[in-house]
Formats: sequence, C-alpha cells, structure tokens
Amino acid sequence: MKKTTRLKQLIRSEEIEFLMEAHNGLSGKIAENCGFKGIWASGLTISASLGVRDNNEASWTQVLDVLEFMSDATSVPILLDGDTGYGNFNNARRLVKKLEQRSIAGVCIEDKLFPKTNSFIKSEMQPLANIDEFCGKIKAMKDSQTDEDFVVVARVEAFIAGWGLEESLQRAEAYRQAGADAILIHSKRSDVTEIDAFMKEWAFRHPIVIVPTKYYKTPVDKFEELGVSMVIWANHNLRSSIVAMQQTSKQIFEQKSLIQVEENLATLDDVFHLQNADELKEAEKKYLPANGLKS
Amino acid sequence: MKKTTRLKQLIRSEEIEFLMEAHNGLSGKIAENCGFKGIWASGLTISASLGVRDNNEASWTQVLDVLEFMSDATSVPILLDGDTGYGNFNNARRLVKKLEQRSIAGVCIEDKLFPKTNSFIKSEMQPLANIDEFCGKIKAMKDSQTDEDFVVVARVEAFIAGWGLEESLQRAEAYRQAGADAILIHSKRSDVTEIDAFMKEWAFRHPIVIVPTKYYKTPVDKFEELGVSMVIWANHNLRSSIVAMQQTSKQIFEQKSLIQVEENLATLDDVFHLQNADELKEAEKKYLPANGLKS
Amino acid sequence: MKKTTRLKQLIRSEEIEFLMEAHNGLSGKIAENCGFKGIWASGLTISASLGVRDNNEASWTQVLDVLEFMSDATSVPILLDGDTGYGNFNNARRLVKKLEQRSIAGVCIEDKLFPKTNSFIKSEMQPLANIDEFCGKIKAMKDSQTDEDFVVVARVEAFIAGWGLEESLQRAEAYRQAGADAILIHSKRSDVTEIDAFMKEWAFRHPIVIVPTKYYKTPVDKFEELGVSMVIWANHNLRSSIVAMQQTSKQIFEQKSLIQVEENLATLDDVFHLQNADELKEAEKKYLPANGLKS
Amino acid sequence: MKKTTRLKQLIRSEEIEFLMEAHNGLSGKIAENCGFKGIWASGLTISASLGVRDNNEASWTQVLDVLEFMSDATSVPILLDGDTGYGNFNNARRLVKKLEQRSIAGVCIEDKLFPKTNSFIKSEMQPLANIDEFCGKIKAMKDSQTDEDFVVVARVEAFIAGWGLEESLQRAEAYRQAGADAILIHSKRSDVTEIDAFMKEWAFRHPIVIVPTKYYKTPVDKFEELGVSMVIWANHNLRSSIVAMQQTSKQIFEQKSLIQVEENLATLDDVFHLQNADELKEAEKKYLPANGLKS
Repeated sequence: MKKTTRLKQLIRSEEIEFLMEAHNGLSGKIAENCGFKGIWASGLTISASLGVRDNNEASWTQVLDVLEFMSDATSVPILLDGDTGYGNFNNARRLVKKLEQRSIAGVCIEDKLFPKTNSFIKSEMQPLANIDEFCGKIKAMKDSQTDEDFVVVARVEAFIAGWGLEESLQRAEAYRQAGADAILIHSKRSDVTEIDAFMKEWAFRHPIVIVPTKYYKTPVDKFEELGVSMVIWANHNLRSSIVAMQQTSKQIFEQKSLIQVEENLATLDDVFHLQNADELKEAEKKYLPANGLKS
Repeated sequence: MKKTTRLKQLIRSEEIEFLMEAHNGLSGKIAENCGFKGIWASGLTISASLGVRDNNEASWTQVLDVLEFMSDATSVPILLDGDTGYGNFNNARRLVKKLEQRSIAGVCIEDKLFPKTNSFIKSEMQPLANIDEFCGKIKAMKDSQTDEDFVVVARVEAFIAGWGLEESLQRAEAYRQAGADAILIHSKRSDVTEIDAFMKEWAFRHPIVIVPTKYYKTPVDKFEELGVSMVIWANHNLRSSIVAMQQTSKQIFEQKSLIQVEENLATLDDVFHLQNADELKEAEKKYLPANGLKS
Repeated sequence: MKKTTRLKQLIRSEEIEFLMEAHNGLSGKIAENCGFKGIWASGLTISASLGVRDNNEASWTQVLDVLEFMSDATSVPILLDGDTGYGNFNNARRLVKKLEQRSIAGVCIEDKLFPKTNSFIKSEMQPLANIDEFCGKIKAMKDSQTDEDFVVVARVEAFIAGWGLEESLQRAEAYRQAGADAILIHSKRSDVTEIDAFMKEWAFRHPIVIVPTKYYKTPVDKFEELGVSMVIWANHNLRSSIVAMQQTSKQIFEQKSLIQVEENLATLDDVFHLQNADELKEAEKKYLPANGLKS
Repeated sequence: MKKTTRLKQLIRSEEIEFLMEAHNGLSGKIAENCGFKGIWASGLTISASLGVRDNNEASWTQVLDVLEFMSDATSVPILLDGDTGYGNFNNARRLVKKLEQRSIAGVCIEDKLFPKTNSFIKSEMQPLANIDEFCGKIKAMKDSQTDEDFVVVARVEAFIAGWGLEESLQRAEAYRQAGADAILIHSKRSDVTEIDAFMKEWAFRHPIVIVPTKYYKTPVDKFEELGVSMVIWANHNLRSSIVAMQQTSKQIFEQKSLIQVEENLATLDDVFHLQNADELKEAEKKYLPANGLKS
C-alpha cells in the first residue's frame, strides 16, 4: 500500500492513531521499529538537530533533504510539519510536488506568517494568516497533488496566538471547506480545556489532530472520548536523545574513559543493524566479482 | 583564535587531548557545552544518523552540508572523518577547499579504496590504497590549503586490513614524509597490543591519534605513557542517543502516554536554549519595528 | 505515458531517434520546445556550466539537483550521462533509486574507473573497469529499479581507451547479457570507421546508441544504414551558448552600451515565457484573495 | 585583494563601473574573461537557467549552491541579487554569513514582500516593505558581517511599484542612514526620466547603482553625467544564450546533422579550457604515481 494511502487511512480510522516524532533517518527508523504506524517530521526537532532555530533558518530544501533520507530509511508514512508552507500558495504547491517525489505522505501547514516562530516561544498575541489567503493556499496544494491520497492537514494557531475559541472554530471550518484532509488544533495550555471546548463545538465534522506536548498529563482516553482522530508525540525522541548525549558526553569528558559508559550504549552491531548493513553484505556476494574487486 | 590553529595546537600539545564525536549541529553543541576542546565529525555516525550506511552512500557534499550546520553551531574545532577523501587527489584537494570555506579545522583521510566499508564490519584481508597514490593525495591536500594551520591527518588501516606492524610503520612513515600533520593508527583489537607495538617502534616521530572504540578498557594513562597525542571518542554520542530514543519510543508506544517519559526528557526550554533562541529574541527587539511586523 | 516508457520506446523504435543535450532546466526546455523527443543530460556540459571539470568534481547529488530542475521543467524523457555510476554497484543502484524519484527516464554508465576523465581529453591507453565488476553493476541497477521501464544504457569505452574492436564487442555482449537495455558504443575518431566495424559484427543484436561528436561529418543516413537506434547530439547547446555569451559579453564590455546587442537577444517576455510565468498569473487569480495579499 | 574590498572600491570609485550578469560558473567565467571587473548574480537569470520562475521558487540555499560554483570559478567580485533577503532580518543576516563563507562580495536586497515577483512582470501598484522593517533588515545585515568590506546594496522599488519620486527619495535616504553601502534605484520606464529626476534630488549623497534593462538606449555618458556609480547589465548573457540554443537546437533538429552548426560552436577544447582542464593535467603529473593509478 502507498504511504499516502496508509496515512489517509490512519487519519480516517475509527480508532485513535498516533504519530511519533523523528528528525532524521535514524530516529525515523527507530520510531518505526518500535511499532509506530506513522512519523511526524517535526519542524522544531529537525531544526534543533541541525543546530538552528525553529524560525525558518534552515531553507525549505534543506528540510527536504532531511525528509528524503528519512523517507528512504523507513516504510511507514511521514507527515511533515511544514510550517507555513514556506511562503505563499505557490511555494506551498511546489512543496507538495517535491514531497510527492520523495514519498512523503502528507504535510501540515499552519496559519502563521513567514518566517515562523515556534508556537511555544512567544506569549504575546500574534497576527495570523489572512483566512482567505490561507484557504487559497490549501486549495492550491490540494489541486496540485498528483496522488489523490496525499494528505494536507491545516493547523489552526488561533488558541496559540491568543484569539480564542470562536476564531479557532471559524478557521477550522474555513480550512475544512477549502479542502484540508484534517484539522490540527493546537493549544499550549497545560490542560485540555481549549481542546475540550473546541471538540464539543466541532461535533465530529472532520478528522482532528492534536499535539499534547503541553497538556501531556491528559490521558489518551480523554482524547478518544472527545473524538480526536490522531495524536502526535511531537518532539520526544529528540528530547530524550539530548539528555542521553549530555550525560554521555559529560561522563566521558570527566572520566576520560569509556569503561563506565560502554554498557549503556547501543553496540556497534546495533548501529550496523539500523543501517541495514547485512543487506549490503548479501548484495556484495551477488554483484561483486568473487575476488572482491571494489570499483 | 582560528579553529584551524586551535586544532593544530591540540595535536601538538604536550598533554594528551580528546575529541568527542558529533553527527549534527545539536550533538556538536552538546559536546562543546560539556567541555570538549574539539569535535570528531564521524563518518559512521553521520551516515547512521542520516539513515544510510557507512559506505559512501551519502555523497561528499551531503556530508559537507551536515558539517556546515555543525560548524556554524559550535566554536571549537572540528576534525572531519573524511573517509578516503571521496576519490583521488583531485577530489581530496577540492574537499580541503570546501572544508576551509566552512571553517572545518581539519580532515582525516584513510588509506582504503573508494567506496569505503566501515573498519569494523569486514574481517577478511582487504586491499589498501597504493602508498604512492595515497602520499600524492596527502601532498595535494597540503598544497591546496590556503590556511597554513588546516590539519590533514593520515589514517593507517594496515592493522585493520590484516597487514600487520611492518606495513603499518612503513605507511605511517611515508604519510608523515608526504606532509601529514598527524598519523591516526587504527586497530580493531579489543586490547592495546597493536597500538603498543606501533608506538614503541614509532618513537615519538610525529603526533599520533588513536580511536579506542574496541580497546575501550585500556586506561588513558596507558595511552599517555605510549606517547599518544590525541584520543578520539568516535561514536558514543550517537550510540547513547539510540538507546534513549529506542526506550522513549517504546515506552510511549506501549503506554500511549507521555506522563512516564516526561520527567526524563530535556525540557522544551532546554531545546530552545540549545538553539540559542534568546539571541533571536534580543535581536528582534533591535531590528524589528516596535509593532512586531514580521516581513 | 510515463517518461521511462517513452524513452524505452525511443530506444526500441524502428526509426532512428535523437536526443539533444541539455545542462539545466532552461536548455532542457529549449530542446523540448524545438521538437526533440528526449534529452541527454550530459556530464560534460553539466559540469562545464557549473564551472567545474568533467572529472567528478561536482558530487553525484549536485548532479541530481541539476537533473531535478531539468526534469521538472520538461515533459520529454531524460537520459542521464551517469559517468561510472559514481562508485561501485551500490552507489549505482542508489543512483537508480534517486533518478526514479525525480522522474529521470534512464541512465547511461560507462566502463571507466572513478573518478572519470572526459573521453576526449586523454590520448594514452587507459585501464577500463573489470568486465565482471561492470556487469555486476548493471545487474544491480536493473534489479533495483522499481519502474520496469527505467532504462540502463551501458557505454563501452574500449575504442576510446585504445583497446580496439575485439574488446569492444566482448564488452558490449557482456553488458547486453548482464541486462543493459542498450549499448552506447563510443568513438573519438573523426570518421565512422570504428562504429562501422562494430555495427557489422554486432548484427542488430541489441539497440545501439552513438555519440557522433567527433565524426559529426558522417550523415545520419549512414547511421541508419548501420542499424543505429539512437543518436545523441551531446554538447551542442552548451557550445553554442558559450559563443553567444562570449560575443555578447565582449560587445557590451567594449561598447559600454546595450544598444547594439539588444536586438540579437531574447526579449524579457521570451524569458518569462520559458519560465511559464503566465501560469502563475492565472494561478494568482485563482488562489490569492482579491486584494492581492501575498503572504 | 579580497573580493569584498574590490567590490567596495568599484562602488566608491570615481569612474562609473560596470557589472555583467552571470547565472552559473560558466557565464561568470566568461564575463570575467571578457574583462568585467565584477559580476551581477541575477535572481531572474539564475531562476530562469534553473528552469523556475523569479518568484522565490528556488530556495535560498539552492541559489547559494549556484553562487558557490560561480565564486569558485571566478576571481572578480560577485554582487548577489538577493531578492528581499529571503524573509525577515534574521533570514537576511543568515544570508550574509553564508555569502561570506563562499567569498561572495556583496548582496543587494529590495524592498518588496516575500515571495517576490520580478519587477518587470506586474503593472499594478504593489505594496512595498515597511520602511522601518526594511531599515532594520539592513542594520541586521551590516551588524552581522564579519568582513568589514562586505557590501550591502539597498534596492528601491518605489518607481517600479508606482509610488513615485518622493517615496523613492524617502526610502533611499532611510536605507542610506540604516547603513546601506549603496542604493540601487530601479526603473522600468523605457527612458531615463525617473532616474534623471531622482539623481538631481539625490545630489551625490551616496553611491547609486542602476539597471538600465528597459532604458537601454540611454548612453552611458548620460549616466556618468548624472553621477551614477555603477551600471548593471543585468540579464544579457542569459538572453543571448537563449537565442543561440534555440537556433542550434532547431537547426540540428531539422537537419538531423551537425555539419552546418559545427563551425559556429565553441570547440571542445574551448570548453576544456574554460574548465581549466590543463591545470588538472599538470596536477596529475605531480600527484599521481607514474603508472597513472587513479584511486
């Protein structure tokens, strides 16, 4: 089954589904190996792993390069956190074309202004994209996809930017009508109240995706009860890797020795296995002359 | 002080010095923050993090792109694990030019054949580069650098490939005479015997770099006693991140909840801090109009 | 019809067919607009237009980037001049995957050693790739393609490298048996004698492609008579653009004026038309709000 | 002398100076060979040669990749046509950092909105960037350059967008005070009247750059008399190459022969010479073993 079709099914499935964050080929592979049916290619964690800020400092084609490696390394569908679509409708529809070429199953765009700021950084009330302009962007993206199952998710930042429930509902409905395959309703509250209020008004009109980074204490049962279709664990692989690397670097630096850390690390064979080294060994037997000549 | 000068000083320093592995901007930043004076940009871990094999599957310019992010994110010198130089002398000297543009302090090339295989994967005896050809490559690299302190390290794979001490010494001496700033002598034995034997014959002729991934139980005192100049902890950040991500992904997948994992993760503020988000906040006050207009 | 299918048809067509050289999106578009049914993405002209040498100075992914623009800008199939496949069988099969993602219809690989030298530069007898190794490369490429119509052409450099007819025939036959969809037999003689001799022995076994850059005076009728399937005009767009730019630059430099050159240039409207600017104007009407709001 | 210093001198020189358009390494080399002291890396012609539109369809890092090849292939300074700076002040100052790494001598930014439209395409009155925001961008760029001679040119689009002389003067003065090294005043009239009016009011306050693509009939003497510092021939190499390639492609397509076109083309030796092939031949003698072993 195509990755696009698989993602569309996940979004429309009766059950609540989950995407796990990844920021490169390795973390994508790990997420897949652990059982996740899909991957969230997070703008925050991709930028953080590159070493830049989540403010469109990496160009959109540099993000594409990361995605291409990630897609090649995995077989489950990837949903890209595509910021604002990196410009206007024309940039956004070009993005769709480029994502399809790399077998990325879908993209989520948010109704902020370019260049974006991470949703959890600023607290003051921010201007959002003009609704008509954003709907035109969604339409352009849907019209340009060549694979009918490619998924476009529209992310409503009205709660984040301080505009409240009415604005959130109005935008969600407009984006639904413009053709979005699902609505991501984002909240930075540490409780589920905003999502709760939204879902009750929304009344199962269209699939809803959420990102409970801040309201992480809310049990999944609650999300199911509210009718959420998909939950994104948006940055947790990266955040766990940071702690691990900080501890390991610190320990090696202080001890000037690997003895203490070695047992807590993945083995080299684990690394080779994640890289699929065995396949190459087999292929060498098949395609290289018996004398092992290399090039 | 220039990064090149700093790396050259580390290699020539009286004391034994250490480089910590990094594979992207984030891990480089973490290594620096923990106190390391320099970074080893590992071919194995860069390829693994991208999701490909350590067999020149990523192109040399894709590796460059990783390095550029890493160099921009850090202030300590980076030594690139440059495989075979990605071709012949002409490719290798082009590499030097490209590294200098990106403020990479030096590169280590190994006397294997292109495309390479990771040193720890194969066990049979492998052909190595022709000595004269490899010396020509070193000369071409040294002749092409425009910054006199740019560092070229020549890595001897003769122990790895099964050719023994004589061959190792002959190659090391040839590479030294060809102009290499240091010799990396590699061994995959789980004890230090090969390094020990080499160092005794070498007799402090020129700086020696080692990578004790396999003989990790040998204490640093032993390396100092043997006269080693620099030790590379070659893949440990990546290997610790793998374990962390595997555990976190598994736990979230099974528990369908973030509650248990949250306390073990870096906070979002930690992430923003690693991305240097505060500097941007300050800069926005300075460069954006008071009304916060964005573009 | 898929581009791959179209290229395969051209190679198998009863009539002799022609590919025109292009080195970027613009020249590809021009070739297509003039009526050519297919494009030769030349290694020589791509490297020359980038400003580097035809010795694998541009990385294979930098070549891919050029191809992606070229493929997006055109609708006829593109056959890539893929040098040696940029490494061993593993690099070559990765290349196939990357080309398929970008809708490149096929690739031609040559039996030289990496890094390559342009066929017209050196005159001394050169070593060629080991036949078994090269056949393994062809097999790996054919086995890895996911689109059954993707085309792999094997280029025989035995005449170029001074090995003569017997060697050429032996290699061509081996490559045919390994699965190549066509054989490109290359010659740097200024007459057709080598090709003539080869074709007579070959006896229509499998489609043959030629590149008459040096024996350009030979009429196409002769090629048809010999049973050639496809002729590549391999570098002529670039070579004509060089003369034009040299003349225009020189004239403007000397005259410090545009008056004399203006009438000999494409108009700005021509440029905009080649860029398909009108489509964007139409799209803006459709997707932008009436007030022209941009982002 | 550094390329930045050279460009700054050209801008401040007593005499009127000229930049010639280039869109890749080859055209840059040709411009230099013809005697031009500097190069204009045009957004229009770079995008056209890639095969995309001049509406920020190529990402800013794809433009950077073109520039890196161009800078490596030439020794005269390059001034980049940097559109709007590809986002806000933060994107623009990142651009400066990236350009400095690649030895690009300066960048010109224009006071349009992102994503841009080519100045010669639209006729209706367009909104321009907020003056304070654009001045903040200039300041951020100047503050971030590490080479004191790096050049930032501010391009005033007020005439182009239909805002007239007053607005043009107000913006030019604001940008001068914000720290721009020169002002590019753009006009799409076919006569010099707008420039004439501007220059008289401007009264030699700061270096002025012009682009007489539309008012090409005006003699250079007039520009000198008005006190213009620098004239950019902005797209003429590309436009001449289009005509040449269209004619050559058409002729070869129709004649199915190279005989007629051959004499009008650059020779292969011309191509190799532009690629600096001779240097590699010499280097091979120096760095390759006598037996010609390649890798």
